[in-house]
Amino acid sequence: MYGLTGKMIAQSGQRDTLIGYLLQAAKGMEVVEGCYLYVVSSADDDPNGIWITEVWRDKAAHDVSLQLEGAQELIAKARPIIAGFGERFESTPVGGKGLPEDAVQ
Amino acid sequence: MYGLTGKMIAQSGQRDTLIGYLLQAAKGMEVVEGCYLYVVSSADDDPNGIWITEVWRDKAAHDVSLQLEGAQELIAKARPIIAGFGERFESTPVGGKGLPEDAVQ
Repeated sequence: MYGLTGKMIAQSGQRDTLIGYLLQAAKGMEVVEGCYLYVVSSADDDPNGIWITEVWRDKAAHDVSLQLEGAQELIAKARPIIAGFGERFESTPVGGKGLPEDAVQ
Repeated sequence: MYGLTGKMIAQSGQRDTLIGYLLQAAKGMEVVEGCYLYVVSSADDDPNGIWITEVWRDKAAHDVSLQLEGAQELIAKARPIIAGFGERFESTPVGGKGLPEDAVQ
């Protein structure tokens, strides 16, 4: 599996709008092959911060998802209200609660 | 909702053992009220690092879980092989893929 946790920083006052775009993206992920988790959260310590927590079958599935037409459209729409990016952590999920049964060996 | 992403650092060479304890803890969470996600991942950039990604109905549900007998036993067992803790981020999950239907308003 491939895990990616990253922080996005919205332009001041634009966090809710950016979260809206990300939730649209998450909706698109419902039907994307190999997407196990795509959770959008507002950072508690930063009024403009957003955390995105993703788990994929593998890194290739994640990379493919960024090339989908819907994703590209959303990135274009979101770009003007993204101020920057914060921390980014890659990981290898091994198990726990909330992953699909067949994802955990 | 309440989100918590935190890094635990195992004593050198003890990561797999510590992950085993955390997966046991995750198994206990299956039946804990208000636990939506508890994913255990090995950090890709640190041979001793482990990421724990949790989503709870609210912070109170998370706090209660730490007091459960099983959790206390696991903490006691794991403590000798925990070298320390890394980053810790609290957040408010708002939606996306992988949360229970009824958790997302």
